[in-house]
Amino acid sequence: MATAISAVDTELEARFAHVRALSLALTDRLSDADATVQSMPDASPAKWHLAHTTWFFETFVLRDHVPGYRLHDDRWPFLFNSYYEAEGRRHARHRRGMITRPDLSEVRAYRAHVDAALARALPDLSADARALVALGCHHEEQHQELLVTDLIHLFSENPLEPALYPPVRRGPSAMPAETGWRSHPGGIVRIGHDGDGFAFDCEGPRHETLLAPHMLADRTVTNGEWAAFIADGGYREPRWWLADGWTWVKAEGVVAPLYWQQGAEGWTRFGLDGRRPVDPAAPVTHISFFEADAYAAWAGARLPTEAEWEAHAARQDPLGGRQMDTAGVIEPVAAADAQMFGNVWEWTGSAYRPYPGFRAADGAVGEYNGKFMSGQFVLRGGSCATPRGHVRACYRNFFYPHQRWQFTGLRLAKDL
Amino acid sequence: MATAISAVDTELEARFAHVRALSLALTDRLSDADATVQSMPDASPAKWHLAHTTWFFETFVLRDHVPGYRLHDDRWPFLFNSYYEAEGRRHARHRRGMITRPDLSEVRAYRAHVDAALARALPDLSADARALVALGCHHEEQHQELLVTDLIHLFSENPLEPALYPPVRRGPSAMPAETGWRSHPGGIVRIGHDGDGFAFDCEGPRHETLLAPHMLADRTVTNGEWAAFIADGGYREPRWWLADGWTWVKAEGVVAPLYWQQGAEGWTRFGLDGRRPVDPAAPVTHISFFEADAYAAWAGARLPTEAEWEAHAARQDPLGGRQMDTAGVIEPVAAADAQMFGNVWEWTGSAYRPYPGFRAADGAVGEYNGKFMSGQFVLRGGSCATPRGHVRACYRNFFYPHQRWQFTGLRLAKDL
Amino acid sequence: MATAISAVDTELEARFAHVRALSLALTDRLSDADATVQSMPDASPAKWHLAHTTWFFETFVLRDHVPGYRLHDDRWPFLFNSYYEAEGRRHARHRRGMITRPDLSEVRAYRAHVDAALARALPDLSADARALVALGCHHEEQHQELLVTDLIHLFSENPLEPALYPPVRRGPSAMPAETGWRSHPGGIVRIGHDGDGFAFDCEGPRHETLLAPHMLADRTVTNGEWAAFIADGGYREPRWWLADGWTWVKAEGVVAPLYWQQGAEGWTRFGLDGRRPVDPAAPVTHISFFEADAYAAWAGARLPTEAEWEAHAARQDPLGGRQMDTAGVIEPVAAADAQMFGNVWEWTGSAYRPYPGFRAADGAVGEYNGKFMSGQFVLRGGSCATPRGHVRACYRNFFYPHQRWQFTGLRLAKDL
Amino acid sequence: MATAISAVDTELEARFAHVRALSLALTDRLSDADATVQSMPDASPAKWHLAHTTWFFETFVLRDHVPGYRLHDDRWPFLFNSYYEAEGRRHARHRRGMITRPDLSEVRAYRAHVDAALARALPDLSADARALVALGCHHEEQHQELLVTDLIHLFSENPLEPALYPPVRRGPSAMPAETGWRSHPGGIVRIGHDGDGFAFDCEGPRHETLLAPHMLADRTVTNGEWAAFIADGGYREPRWWLADGWTWVKAEGVVAPLYWQQGAEGWTRFGLDGRRPVDPAAPVTHISFFEADAYAAWAGARLPTEAEWEAHAARQDPLGGRQMDTAGVIEPVAAADAQMFGNVWEWTGSAYRPYPGFRAADGAVGEYNGKFMSGQFVLRGGSCATPRGHVRACYRNFFYPHQRWQFTGLRLAKDL
Repeated sequence: MATAISAVDTELEARFAHVRALSLALTDRLSDADATVQSMPDASPAKWHLAHTTWFFETFVLRDHVPGYRLHDDRWPFLFNSYYEAEGRRHARHRRGMITRPDLSEVRAYRAHVDAALARALPDLSADARALVALGCHHEEQHQELLVTDLIHLFSENPLEPALYPPVRRGPSAMPAETGWRSHPGGIVRIGHDGDGFAFDCEGPRHETLLAPHMLADRTVTNGEWAAFIADGGYREPRWWLADGWTWVKAEGVVAPLYWQQGAEGWTRFGLDGRRPVDPAAPVTHISFFEADAYAAWAGARLPTEAEWEAHAARQDPLGGRQMDTAGVIEPVAAADAQMFGNVWEWTGSAYRPYPGFRAADGAVGEYNGKFMSGQFVLRGGSCATPRGHVRACYRNFFYPHQRWQFTGLRLAKDL
Repeated sequence: MATAISAVDTELEARFAHVRALSLALTDRLSDADATVQSMPDASPAKWHLAHTTWFFETFVLRDHVPGYRLHDDRWPFLFNSYYEAEGRRHARHRRGMITRPDLSEVRAYRAHVDAALARALPDLSADARALVALGCHHEEQHQELLVTDLIHLFSENPLEPALYPPVRRGPSAMPAETGWRSHPGGIVRIGHDGDGFAFDCEGPRHETLLAPHMLADRTVTNGEWAAFIADGGYREPRWWLADGWTWVKAEGVVAPLYWQQGAEGWTRFGLDGRRPVDPAAPVTHISFFEADAYAAWAGARLPTEAEWEAHAARQDPLGGRQMDTAGVIEPVAAADAQMFGNVWEWTGSAYRPYPGFRAADGAVGEYNGKFMSGQFVLRGGSCATPRGHVRACYRNFFYPHQRWQFTGLRLAKDL
Repeated sequence: MATAISAVDTELEARFAHVRALSLALTDRLSDADATVQSMPDASPAKWHLAHTTWFFETFVLRDHVPGYRLHDDRWPFLFNSYYEAEGRRHARHRRGMITRPDLSEVRAYRAHVDAALARALPDLSADARALVALGCHHEEQHQELLVTDLIHLFSENPLEPALYPPVRRGPSAMPAETGWRSHPGGIVRIGHDGDGFAFDCEGPRHETLLAPHMLADRTVTNGEWAAFIADGGYREPRWWLADGWTWVKAEGVVAPLYWQQGAEGWTRFGLDGRRPVDPAAPVTHISFFEADAYAAWAGARLPTEAEWEAHAARQDPLGGRQMDTAGVIEPVAAADAQMFGNVWEWTGSAYRPYPGFRAADGAVGEYNGKFMSGQFVLRGGSCATPRGHVRACYRNFFYPHQRWQFTGLRLAKDL
Repeated sequence: MATAISAVDTELEARFAHVRALSLALTDRLSDADATVQSMPDASPAKWHLAHTTWFFETFVLRDHVPGYRLHDDRWPFLFNSYYEAEGRRHARHRRGMITRPDLSEVRAYRAHVDAALARALPDLSADARALVALGCHHEEQHQELLVTDLIHLFSENPLEPALYPPVRRGPSAMPAETGWRSHPGGIVRIGHDGDGFAFDCEGPRHETLLAPHMLADRTVTNGEWAAFIADGGYREPRWWLADGWTWVKAEGVVAPLYWQQGAEGWTRFGLDGRRPVDPAAPVTHISFFEADAYAAWAGARLPTEAEWEAHAARQDPLGGRQMDTAGVIEPVAAADAQMFGNVWEWTGSAYRPYPGFRAADGAVGEYNGKFMSGQFVLRGGSCATPRGHVRACYRNFFYPHQRWQFTGLRLAKDL
């Protein structure tokens, strides 16, 4: 959890204001209904994201650290708690879309109320409470990415496939060069959060790990390469697939990445700008771990481990990629050579498990990440929908191997 | 289907205007989100009801009978067709809640567009087309009742249990007298629609049927009586239940009518006025056929057949009961002695099957009722949410035996 | 339930012996495993049928009417009770195939034990107890038919499709003549059991009912006619189908009667003699109510009501058809003109509901038939797997509209 | 896969004979029905295990390496292939219990046929083919353990809970001493198969890995300790559980290890000797990964990684524990201090993923282990149902985190 909040922290005030404003900007084109409907159990309504992130500040900061604070509405914590068992009963996750009231404007008022109270309280908060504010900002950034990807899913379920934003005008992307490979001799490396700046609990402790000699692709796999995998029968050939993956392909009738459709003029994909042609030069995205693993097998390669990925990424600038700076994110763009941050989350071959010496924090906040450490795989690097500044070389994202509504892609690795 | 439209039919114009206005009144307190969310596969969003009833007029009247009519939006029929296979592909029923766009105001504009076009066209329409307009009005009235009951279900799924309307102020209901019994000697009676005025296809042909000597209760079962059934262990004793009913009770954990909860101060129920105490003098409602049948067995009685019900009801005024005249319907009220229309739909013991000589109409409109003639039971009499004027002695409503989100109740019968 | 047991009743002794012997004969080619496995929740293992029918005699006759009788094994009633709630807890229906012990030989010993005890007791039993013995015989005959059809299903699930019996050698069936039609002028008829001889509770009371003028086909629909329905796209055209039926066709991918497969040389079907060519002259069988109803719609006809069927059948000899006289029943044969008993059960258009004045018997035996009176349709006439002597003109069989592992077929009717 | 078969290999002949005989001994008390029924999709019938292991030898050795060999029955490979996609279509896993024919004696004859053919062929087989025979022996040993645990599950589903074997008479077990802890200073160790003797493909390549300083319990957790966890509310307190584990506990109503029941005289468990009291001194078994992980959290410890486990176990004798030497295995016994092999499989905290440099073997045999590398956790050490000689320090077993019908237990670890 939170560590090392800097002493002179007007930064925190600015950061809080910035994060809270971005959430509003991301939702400013939404109707009340757009913000309310839940399109699948994995996704949450935009209104719920707006309220839940606010509940986090209200509960763990204002309620616990600001004497005399009165809850905006004492019936709402039941609605907007997510999974914190220690915080008591809560509304069932898959019924979040039933909450038509409070409506979007009431939730915005809730945000304004909490923002004002927190702004007033911030200067006098203890270091512990300030650490919780910082945690809340990072927490909200996580939800911003979910909010964007949940919206894409919601609009994709509407047969009219509405576009929230106009398409971005740009010239055709240049096709990237053949994949290059960056070698690593192996040996002991240190990974995990080094204690400088914020990180989530699961990113530490920093520790040594041993890498085998290997090489890592200098870019992620493109849509054009993925289309070749499809054309070669990749989705019809069991030998490329993990057994669970093959079962999933058969049960769900999977034949392409999520949101892809084949028409007379080739593949199209759906995004916040509606349905558009697939750009062969852009990184493939909206693929599951199962698909990433099958592609790697077909390509005679494998997925990198999270430690390999981090060892390479440690030398790059985490602010340097295509990430979310503002509302209106549409899709990944053709990545510059070797950029490992932003654009698409990269599936690794590592199961999401605790690092040596990991201990969950105490209390409700301690439920944060450790309880999800079974059945999921680690993704690294952030995506075009990850707020800039949110991601780090040591950042561990995680999803189940069949999930693919995030901006997920892959980068190949090979043994040396 | 439609028969005997009167020659001087400015009535139809008035009726059309009245029906269309009521739908708007029923939804005027709804937010965009209230009108968009689907709370279960059996229910539809209010916005969908508003649009689907409009689609019916646009498709079967304007498109088919008004030369030069242009569809309001040619992508919308896919969204707002319900189950007419002959009208082509349509959006999956259980995904109706995904349509956040068009929003509520756009659907209202769609209504205005179609209303205007139809008002212009009406004077010159053929008798066939006018019959379709009349059918569309009756069709919309059916959806008005569903719209109201679907809204109750939606708000009941919100943990805050919001009230759409304030509670009606009235004095405590007087407890009804003991059930009286009205005897019928049996013999051949004629039932079904007699061809005078409108009826749905399944209400005819009018035909003779043979009744056994029997008697019918002069009022429906009350909440107070139902509470006695519960207190006597009615939901825990398999011998009162049909086998499928018992399976349903166990699987769903049913212990009381839908929307009932037991608290420190006794039973409450949820309705459009929020959660309120159960009125022991009012008719029990929101019960399934399985519950009605079990109650009747417990009470040493049985459900009436639909023919018995109709034979008794034929002497009553179908406009005389508690029915929906305006928006703001909350719940049934304690019924006057012997009123068989309005207040609650009464489960009969008759499976919903065709009458002798029944034939479905040709074409898409012919899909209307016949295709649902398996697995459902007939209900008679209308409810407090049935628009006044919609119901007749020969009117056949039908639901599956486990369904209970409508205003459903029961009246007992006995063999003589 | 049982009525009118004849005064001089050595018949009962003989009947008991005959029925009990037939069950053994039906299972004499079965291995222990054949007799133990349950192939679907609707079916039961042969061993279970053998034991359950024995449990019925042991419980309701020996235990209740023979002083000093000791249960063969006091743990077995839990295993072999079927659905009698009043007889206490019982093993879950869908887990009947888990009972590998007691094995087949132990169950045969159980039968021998109970048979001997009952034979000893019979001469001194009261009339009530003798009525229960008669009931038990009819009950066992019902299970004999299920046993045969459950075995077909079991063997059909084995990819090797083993044949229990060799095919019957016979010349090719002559194609039946075009369907003839037998008219009935309508009017009041009496149906239901008349109190003479045994009948199940649901067959009475005998009562008057009113028929509409109609005509009934003089034979059932053949495989050849069914193949024409398939060839005409019958399974692909929604307008022939009830809505629930169409949902079932789509969900299950139904394209032909159960056990049919299409190969290079045309349609084959599976039966106790293995996989054989479909005989176009034989009645179609293993069809659901949904299929029967769709076929009738396609053929411009309808299914008869059960009262219509019974009015016609009352003039025929219930012993005169193709029924089960011995083990080795394979399939229906091409029916002689106008025979209404045996060969295939005929779906009617009547929902299975109580007759006027029906009351369930008291006690556990009273759970017999009334509790199944929702969601099912009546079939009439018996099949080639119905023991000869078991069926009557007033006999009411019933299944859910999607079920088709019995020998089910159809006969058309039309309005006059 | 197979490596380093010794030059003088009459050992292989002896080993083959021994393995094949043990399978027969394990099933010699089974009836045909016992051997045929499938009690859940995860389990297979005993007859299927007997046939499938035989199919492996017939297919990969006799068919592929013995000229002129004729299949025993060319329809059987479809029945007895398990999951080898490259070997073509196969019978659905969850329908394995439908195969009542061939019966148990026919499957035994199949075994005799293949055994004889293989014995004849063995002296002349190539080294490659001999390696496949060795692989087949190890493969059959895996199935022997499954066969035993599948039988326990099957008999547990019979309400009579039959005992296949009499209980073992022995004095009461001495309670083990308090857990002792064995420290490891951490550092680079080598794990994985070293190429000497047989190993499955997933056990290699041998490679270096880096351990953190830690300590490992000197014995596994006992039933008595587990009962204390239950008594302390372990199954009711979400904070001990992984989120997926808590969902599983709630959905399945889990309150104790599989086969445990609480009665008036305390906990009992079911095994091949029927239902018996739980021995508090014996290792807890039939627990899921979720339960193991929750227990460790409750105990202030964690599960060891598979590398930690292997580093400790490398110093122990893999033949030294309580393992299966003959038929009649009942349950684990109270383990001697520090024995890490046999008795119960120990859940590790390591997800089952490939080692650095792992590559699946080519062809159908290559489907062996790699395709299961998602969603499962590694278990180490073998159990009382693992044939003696089958397990090694580097042996990797794997199951899904909710599965617990194997003899699964746990050993605690802690960070230093």
